[in-house]
Amino acid sequence: MKDMNPNGLEAVHAYWQAANYLSAGQIFLKANPLLREPLQAEHIKPRLMGHWGTCPGLNLVWAHCNRLIRNTGMRLVFIAGPGHGAPAVLSCAYLDGSFTEHYPAVTEDAEGMRLLFRQFSSPGGMPSHVSPLTPGSLHEGGELGYCLSHAFGAVFDDPGLVAVCVIGDGEAETGPLEGSWKSIHFLHPQRDGAVLPILHMNGYKIASPTILGRYSNDELIKKFSGEGYAVRIVEGSDPEDVHGHMAAAMDEAYDRIISIKRSAGKEFNSHEAGWPLIILKTPKGWTGPETLSGKQVEGSFRSHQVPLEEVKHDDIELAALEKWLRSYEPEKLFDPAGKLTAPAASNIPPAALRMGNSPYANGGNNPQPLRLPETNRYRINAHPPGTRKASATKEVGKFLRDVFVENREHNNFRLFCPDEASSNKLDAVFEVTSRCSMLPVHGPDEHIGPEGRVFEVLSEHLCQGWLEGYLLTGKHGLFATYEAFAPITDSMLTQFAKWLKGCRDTP
Amino acid sequence: MKDMNPNGLEAVHAYWQAANYLSAGQIFLKANPLLREPLQAEHIKPRLMGHWGTCPGLNLVWAHCNRLIRNTGMRLVFIAGPGHGAPAVLSCAYLDGSFTEHYPAVTEDAEGMRLLFRQFSSPGGMPSHVSPLTPGSLHEGGELGYCLSHAFGAVFDDPGLVAVCVIGDGEAETGPLEGSWKSIHFLHPQRDGAVLPILHMNGYKIASPTILGRYSNDELIKKFSGEGYAVRIVEGSDPEDVHGHMAAAMDEAYDRIISIKRSAGKEFNSHEAGWPLIILKTPKGWTGPETLSGKQVEGSFRSHQVPLEEVKHDDIELAALEKWLRSYEPEKLFDPAGKLTAPAASNIPPAALRMGNSPYANGGNNPQPLRLPETNRYRINAHPPGTRKASATKEVGKFLRDVFVENREHNNFRLFCPDEASSNKLDAVFEVTSRCSMLPVHGPDEHIGPEGRVFEVLSEHLCQGWLEGYLLTGKHGLFATYEAFAPITDSMLTQFAKWLKGCRDTP
Repeated sequence: MKDMNPNGLEAVHAYWQAANYLSAGQIFLKANPLLREPLQAEHIKPRLMGHWGTCPGLNLVWAHCNRLIRNTGMRLVFIAGPGHGAPAVLSCAYLDGSFTEHYPAVTEDAEGMRLLFRQFSSPGGMPSHVSPLTPGSLHEGGELGYCLSHAFGAVFDDPGLVAVCVIGDGEAETGPLEGSWKSIHFLHPQRDGAVLPILHMNGYKIASPTILGRYSNDELIKKFSGEGYAVRIVEGSDPEDVHGHMAAAMDEAYDRIISIKRSAGKEFNSHEAGWPLIILKTPKGWTGPETLSGKQVEGSFRSHQVPLEEVKHDDIELAALEKWLRSYEPEKLFDPAGKLTAPAASNIPPAALRMGNSPYANGGNNPQPLRLPETNRYRINAHPPGTRKASATKEVGKFLRDVFVENREHNNFRLFCPDEASSNKLDAVFEVTSRCSMLPVHGPDEHIGPEGRVFEVLSEHLCQGWLEGYLLTGKHGLFATYEAFAPITDSMLTQFAKWLKGCRDTP
Repeated sequence: MKDMNPNGLEAVHAYWQAANYLSAGQIFLKANPLLREPLQAEHIKPRLMGHWGTCPGLNLVWAHCNRLIRNTGMRLVFIAGPGHGAPAVLSCAYLDGSFTEHYPAVTEDAEGMRLLFRQFSSPGGMPSHVSPLTPGSLHEGGELGYCLSHAFGAVFDDPGLVAVCVIGDGEAETGPLEGSWKSIHFLHPQRDGAVLPILHMNGYKIASPTILGRYSNDELIKKFSGEGYAVRIVEGSDPEDVHGHMAAAMDEAYDRIISIKRSAGKEFNSHEAGWPLIILKTPKGWTGPETLSGKQVEGSFRSHQVPLEEVKHDDIELAALEKWLRSYEPEKLFDPAGKLTAPAASNIPPAALRMGNSPYANGGNNPQPLRLPETNRYRINAHPPGTRKASATKEVGKFLRDVFVENREHNNFRLFCPDEASSNKLDAVFEVTSRCSMLPVHGPDEHIGPEGRVFEVLSEHLCQGWLEGYLLTGKHGLFATYEAFAPITDSMLTQFAKWLKGCRDTP
């Protein structure tokens, strides 16, 4: 693959291969991590867990992000929509050294690799889905639909940050995800960072094809350009081709982001800005076994989870697994001690910029505490009782107004609301800020503009998702909604609470 | 408006005007329903409730549906996404006589009209949102996002039925609604009916502009044609113009539906079929007060709810209300007794086809009970205990397989599932049916095709919404999902349970 060299693609490819190897290793192996011995049933885990299908795509994106970081010094945070692809995220974080920094027992050598494999999806080890224990993570991806809203929440008020958000074409079918594309119309080109959504279409869910997977490329471009995105499709199953196209797409996306942020002026219109969207079409379970018992595995739903389920008890499957794992040539990717070698190792970004170690995924970069005014100032004198009419939420509105003022310096407070701020009598906030919109403003509109810090969209899922991403990156906010409609997002809240609980136990 | 005559548009316009009059009347008046006397504060309700803004649009669509029914004999069911526009639905059902058939006390005369107004949003009367008490309704529209999935559920397995689904541009922002557009890819051109979605863009929500309202027409066309719709935009604020364009759009939609259903063959592709979508852009609160205290009301968020809130205590507002109500010329729309006159009356469809009396909105047209096999047939002999391995859900799969077989004759059973039928071990159903898809099928796919009765989409909201629409129109189904993800739709389920409870008390 010599002609990939000029763009640093040899290193990207090797990093990808190493990550794919480690992803498969986590799913299958409990011993013989570098395949120094012929593969035996005793090297295989007793119970096979994990999702292979999405891993090669996640690894590809991560490897290309590393290249972008190396070339540009850009600060990226990685959001894996397909959170069931945790083996990929763990592999990539292990390769860049951040995993070992978090978990020193898992060293960058053969014994560490064995531990990495062994502890995956084992009691006391790493869960099979992305969790707070996963280095560089802020998004679970168990209950699907929220990766894109989390990504936008993460970059709001962080002008130098770009969230790379991988969206599976399964998750893309959910209502909350479909409703998240419009987030660009709330993204301020200077005040906020940017999101690079990468819609990873491998064409299949657990057992059936994805819907978008059966749209033509023209139809996909229409759908997403109708939403305001500048769509670029990267498609293929030949690694060399895909690396070339993907690198060009990432470079173009970077240029777009920089250019939008530089040139956006008073007449900025989020629909015309051309925020980038990459659609990546690669086979599900790419580089894995092509067929099993005459049935297609790679490029089909059969690679979704564990593609060779009977490997511990079936010699044919065991041989297929060995062939698959050896196809990555681990002896070239890792040195005799088990440490990553060049060229893959040269795809590791500078230590401070590694995505596995992102401060944004760990409570934010230099988070500032929220200043709250004395609540006594909003007290209503109710004596003698029954003599005064007053509204509790009106007073809350004044309190929130002052929260905006007191934290103005840090730009780290927002109110998210499904168009109910006024009807909930929180109007006082509009004395000091307005509703946020990057779309054209018309005559009858009130309190609206690009600088607004009140986010009104008639989507409880989007409000809650933005808030979660915003909070996890060290900022402060409130989601205000009618009591009757609060249950719409209760399952989101449960997942978020679980995440917060997990954060407490994370080193 | 003489030149509207050739297309029956004079009658449509008069029906619309009458419905607008009655909608405003329900919100404001408790007496003097036909304005025979000068309007006085004492004629005004003590507490003003209801949402005016969406009513003129809903009335317009209903009036044009009546025209289509009269011209074609098509069976339509009306789904009001903006369920807070109940005054519109109630007005239209009152005008076509179906309201009086359901509630004989509310006669088609001045006294009946007074009662219609008086009981709206009063204890024991009609709720301010569409409810089971609303004639011709099967959709609440309180918690927003589900009108389109309900519409598709309603027409599944009802080949002669068309659901006209009005979607507000507020509701269009929700995740579940954004995720519902793809339903056309599950709609069988012969086995099922059709849905005519009418995206009613009046540009504003409660207090702020809608997001789609700030997309250009080109952008809207891209977005929705990318989804597979043949988009037609009807836009304006001159009634005569809009009536002409709307009638043409409805006729074209009808022709499209008929033509798709007639010509669809083996190579049918739902993305290329060109199912119609009408985007109707008219002012919010159209025909209502233009301004109040120098601020724009018509065509702005200020017409969302009650546009003249102080009318009972403010002479200027009272005069504005009288001017507004008299602008409809009620003395021409209704005869001295208070009954609807020609030409509006000639826009009433034949009795059996009136949307206010739709059997589809009342448990279905000739619903058939579900035949269930003896559960004993699926019993597993577990004696002696602990000696056999078996799976409960596998047996359920066999049971469901036989449910499909036993009800084949009536085509009235479906399984809805977020791509978990196989992983939930319900595979046995695929011995007798398959997954439904109207998109291209590829080599590795299994058990999938246009005739399938298993609906797999990775959207719990869509599964639940389809099921609700399917059940309410007299068919049978099941939504199977992992326990962990069931809470995603719990607020939907609550609203649905409330609806079912309401149905019990409905005459």
